[in-house]
Amino acid sequence: MKLSAVGEFGFIRSIAAQAGTDPALLVGIGDDAAAASISPGMILLSTADLLAEGVHFDLGWGDAYSLGKKSLAVNLSDIAAMGGVPRYALLSLAIPPQLPLEFMTSFVSGFLGQAAKYGVALIGGDTSSSRGGLVVSVTLLGEQLPEKIVRRSGARAGELICVSGTLGDAALGLKQLQAGHCQGEAVRCHLDPVPRVELGKALAEAGIASAMIDISDGFAADLGHILDSSGKGGRVNIDLLPLSAAFRESVPRECADYRRLPLAGGEDYELLFTLPGALLADARALAAAAGTTVAEVGSITADGGLFLADSAGTCYETVVGGYDHFAGD
Amino acid sequence: MKLSAVGEFGFIRSIAAQAGTDPALLVGIGDDAAAASISPGMILLSTADLLAEGVHFDLGWGDAYSLGKKSLAVNLSDIAAMGGVPRYALLSLAIPPQLPLEFMTSFVSGFLGQAAKYGVALIGGDTSSSRGGLVVSVTLLGEQLPEKIVRRSGARAGELICVSGTLGDAALGLKQLQAGHCQGEAVRCHLDPVPRVELGKALAEAGIASAMIDISDGFAADLGHILDSSGKGGRVNIDLLPLSAAFRESVPRECADYRRLPLAGGEDYELLFTLPGALLADARALAAAAGTTVAEVGSITADGGLFLADSAGTCYETVVGGYDHFAGD
Repeated sequence: MKLSAVGEFGFIRSIAAQAGTDPALLVGIGDDAAAASISPGMILLSTADLLAEGVHFDLGWGDAYSLGKKSLAVNLSDIAAMGGVPRYALLSLAIPPQLPLEFMTSFVSGFLGQAAKYGVALIGGDTSSSRGGLVVSVTLLGEQLPEKIVRRSGARAGELICVSGTLGDAALGLKQLQAGHCQGEAVRCHLDPVPRVELGKALAEAGIASAMIDISDGFAADLGHILDSSGKGGRVNIDLLPLSAAFRESVPRECADYRRLPLAGGEDYELLFTLPGALLADARALAAAAGTTVAEVGSITADGGLFLADSAGTCYETVVGGYDHFAGD
Repeated sequence: MKLSAVGEFGFIRSIAAQAGTDPALLVGIGDDAAAASISPGMILLSTADLLAEGVHFDLGWGDAYSLGKKSLAVNLSDIAAMGGVPRYALLSLAIPPQLPLEFMTSFVSGFLGQAAKYGVALIGGDTSSSRGGLVVSVTLLGEQLPEKIVRRSGARAGELICVSGTLGDAALGLKQLQAGHCQGEAVRCHLDPVPRVELGKALAEAGIASAMIDISDGFAADLGHILDSSGKGGRVNIDLLPLSAAFRESVPRECADYRRLPLAGGEDYELLFTLPGALLADARALAAAAGTTVAEVGSITADGGLFLADSAGTCYETVVGGYDHFAGD
């Protein structure tokens, strides 16, 4: 069935009917703007991510349900990296006319399922037809007490550099997808990343993380953002970067990808943060409670620059930049 | 020059450098999420609009500067229709690689100029390349006291139906653009609409408007939204619909467009609102102070349905629907 069978307003009504309600929502979908309250004393957190067909995803890769989940997950990950509590989402879509209604229905189900899981209410957005591919633009609003918010700029010399979960899986999954494989753990990590919302909030509220970012551009590039913002340097033992069993099984140690994907692959959506060494055990306990792990991978130095080496002392050239959307065009 | 010459991060840095600051902004562009405060006692207003090349605009029609202004104006108009004060914007862009850097620089200048004019701080967003056309997705956040917010649902039987400014100009401008004309008052109305932010806020804070909407789908369709939400009907004398001198000069009275464009053309971005008759003079005074006018065009009835007639009593079929993005696909 085509979208034209239900029309723009029918599609919006069907989304609104499934969107649920939030007691803090004064006006939801269906007026000129939504009206919602932020908890007393809290600061509003806002983030936006846009996913474009042919750039961030390929319709042939996976199911629409996962795409709906991921389009919210990448924003949840940003709120998590501030230590915030996600609250409200706005979803704007530019939809190619030929896309089946069933695709968009499944997309919306995935988006709303993810929203419900993390306590997020869909409060607005926009729909349009697209003369190009599908474009998904999400804004996520969250909140946190001002003194609990964790910025990128708070890293101090001598602190540890830590990372949640494992690295490189999503980048490996992307390579597998591009090679025509649609199954497996790494592919799942790429199509359906798990944002570390509970851990980010816990690290912030316990005052453990001094600086934090989520890994979207790649470990080295995102650590570079923390170092730049904090005016510090870093030393990382790349043998300590956490790798999944699936990654170790798929990528031989001799292969360049064994180093490259965890360092610079990107889209891990793990949390990268700094803390005083005395708080590492506390961070590990919070991670365990949140169903993940924390690996200590290096330390912050007073001098600028990022130094990457393995346990044998072999230096790796600093990997900078991450993905540039306009490079090579 | 191409965008690749400055790169994604260079483009974002240049936007951030121009974005200015806001004293209520704890964290601006450059962290995982922005952190901003909402004024004490205020409710957060949120709206989003997406503009897609080939659907909402044609790159050949006008300057990028106006497109930047318009992409914020359509959101400002939504906050105005709630009676809110606009505060913070997030701008997400999917940019075709071949688009010149100068185009996007001019677009951003227009957007930020508009933001500064209305006291809005750009606090976030996202940039991506696009395999289709240019897509502009904006989220605008505003605020207002809960008791001052004006919804669509507050119209009461016997109240007057009023509209600000003039109708049909933007739709006439679109027709002229599609016919290859790039100049003139109507074209300007289409490319660079003026959101009625000051009037919307004033009508709300003075407690004058009982229901309000901005006219994006067309007068009849948007009045239909107020009537549906309020559970009321309406009678409109279409001879009272306010027309500009430029519109009257361009469109003969015998032409179907003379009725059609003001009733159903859309994209007027004027305010359509209801009020008790005793407050009409106050509304007119507020409009004069805001540099526009208010026309009384009809009244709210207890019975459902929208009845459109001219002064001679000739009925016009109810025009419903407005623009459906998925119709005819």
